[in-house]
Amino acid sequence: MKDLSVKILAGDPRALARAATAIENRSPAAESLLKELFFHTGRARVLGITGAPGAGKSTLTDQLVHEFRREGKTVGVLAIDPTSPYTGGAVLGDRIRMLSHHADPGVFIRSMATRGHLGGLASATTDMALLLDAAGKEVVLIETVGVGQDEVEVAKLADVTVVVLVPGMGDDVQAIKAGIMEIADIFVINKADQPGADRLEREILALQSLSTRSDGWVPPIIRAVATEGRGVSETRFAIRSFLARADCKSRAVVNWTLRLREMLRERLIEQFANIDFHAAAEEIAERRSDPYTITDGWIKQLRD
Amino acid sequence: MKDLSVKILAGDPRALARAATAIENRSPAAESLLKELFFHTGRARVLGITGAPGAGKSTLTDQLVHEFRREGKTVGVLAIDPTSPYTGGAVLGDRIRMLSHHADPGVFIRSMATRGHLGGLASATTDMALLLDAAGKEVVLIETVGVGQDEVEVAKLADVTVVVLVPGMGDDVQAIKAGIMEIADIFVINKADQPGADRLEREILALQSLSTRSDGWVPPIIRAVATEGRGVSETRFAIRSFLARADCKSRAVVNWTLRLREMLRERLIEQFANIDFHAAAEEIAERRSDPYTITDGWIKQLRD
Repeated sequence: MKDLSVKILAGDPRALARAATAIENRSPAAESLLKELFFHTGRARVLGITGAPGAGKSTLTDQLVHEFRREGKTVGVLAIDPTSPYTGGAVLGDRIRMLSHHADPGVFIRSMATRGHLGGLASATTDMALLLDAAGKEVVLIETVGVGQDEVEVAKLADVTVVVLVPGMGDDVQAIKAGIMEIADIFVINKADQPGADRLEREILALQSLSTRSDGWVPPIIRAVATEGRGVSETRFAIRSFLARADCKSRAVVNWTLRLREMLRERLIEQFANIDFHAAAEEIAERRSDPYTITDGWIKQLRD
Repeated sequence: MKDLSVKILAGDPRALARAATAIENRSPAAESLLKELFFHTGRARVLGITGAPGAGKSTLTDQLVHEFRREGKTVGVLAIDPTSPYTGGAVLGDRIRMLSHHADPGVFIRSMATRGHLGGLASATTDMALLLDAAGKEVVLIETVGVGQDEVEVAKLADVTVVVLVPGMGDDVQAIKAGIMEIADIFVINKADQPGADRLEREILALQSLSTRSDGWVPPIIRAVATEGRGVSETRFAIRSFLARADCKSRAVVNWTLRLREMLRERLIEQFANIDFHAAAEEIAERRSDPYTITDGWIKQLRD
């Protein structure tokens, strides 16, 4: 394990892949590894990229990876894939992505499936991002599909969050309302050569006019055609501008406050993994016991 | 407290109102009261009524109350109101409803606001339903707006759940997909005199054809115009039919399994109410400690 952490700190991609698997499987060894690595983290910039399915997030992510590589920065990519029940689909996605960067040791790509994942996605993503940070990746890109609360939580873990939208999707405004508006530091209207880009921009502007952020930042709206590389350097510029003025320290504190709650919640659930809820429910349904005494008893058990 | 429980078991409405307030405020006295009352519960039939805002749930609920009263049954109504941030709106709603039943001691109505409510809505609703059950209400109607996960959870607590839909709402099918389909024992198409009722029925039938329930029940689809009292007795008939063949014992066990998890979760959160997450997050952001050691420490504290 000591050996593994030394290799990870040196940026060894095989050691990195082994550790990532340990984290995904929530092996006990992963935790002591993460404890050790933690004090070597905090240098990476974590970038969240989120948006509806089909918005072109993967293409934009790939383009941004190339952009960061041109600047000489090492990059880690975490692709959160909610569509694959296990890692099957994710692994296929990895392979397709790998083609574009496979000869480049400065890029490490990992997909994570959300469904069927043990424990909370936010915690697993946090652990994985810390791993990449410890391995010396200067930029960690976390790509999520901004649909559920889980994905919004993940986006909240980032230093800066890019929300990708496309014109002509009827549920744009709906999706924006559902929490996306709060997390977006930068908007990208992708496929901006399609009809409806103007209207989408007006909708975003209208929503922006309803409230002001406490940090005074007005999220820029960038038009892009990621498949042709258009709008990518503008996105990179917006990321740089945001990070230059952002108070990353206080954002980290806010983010860690959220992460700690989530971690505590998960660990508590693990503590109670052996409870037979069904047997207890039968006792209650038959009025042999009451639910208040039973739950109190469980908590007292934990104390003993 | 002993005195209060005796009065509640005798059905005294003032004692009932006092106890309901204690439950809403989560006063410690409420818990010992509920423990005592619990062994006098299990006789009431709990009916969930859910649907989108504006579907006419309140009107249908009121009509059903009259129907049950004509049968000589005592009724308790819990109206879960997600629109009012505190109880302001809910109290107004109570007053409007009261007009229809205010001279009837056989009916007890209580509104609960969801936003701003301490702790989980499902647990609070459970406690309140048990209170009404102990007070001798033979039917407990729980009216919720079936939008969020919370409301779906509440619906799962009932012996039978009625889902109210109206024609012409574009998001009908959307709402049905979002978990409503699984919880509906009976569908009511309210405002069935409006255009689109046929189409809505076809949509429900189409969704029903996709899966069969393990209990073999096919939820009936009833057309109603609740403001004119149409479809109300048909709904009552469907409720009776469902309950007559339903395995209420195993449903209660399933429901209690869910409730126990929720109760345990809430009680655990209470145990950790004094944690200063922000201070811990600062320690972590400055790399003075790691999140794994900190969360482990909290859990160890609980054990001591």
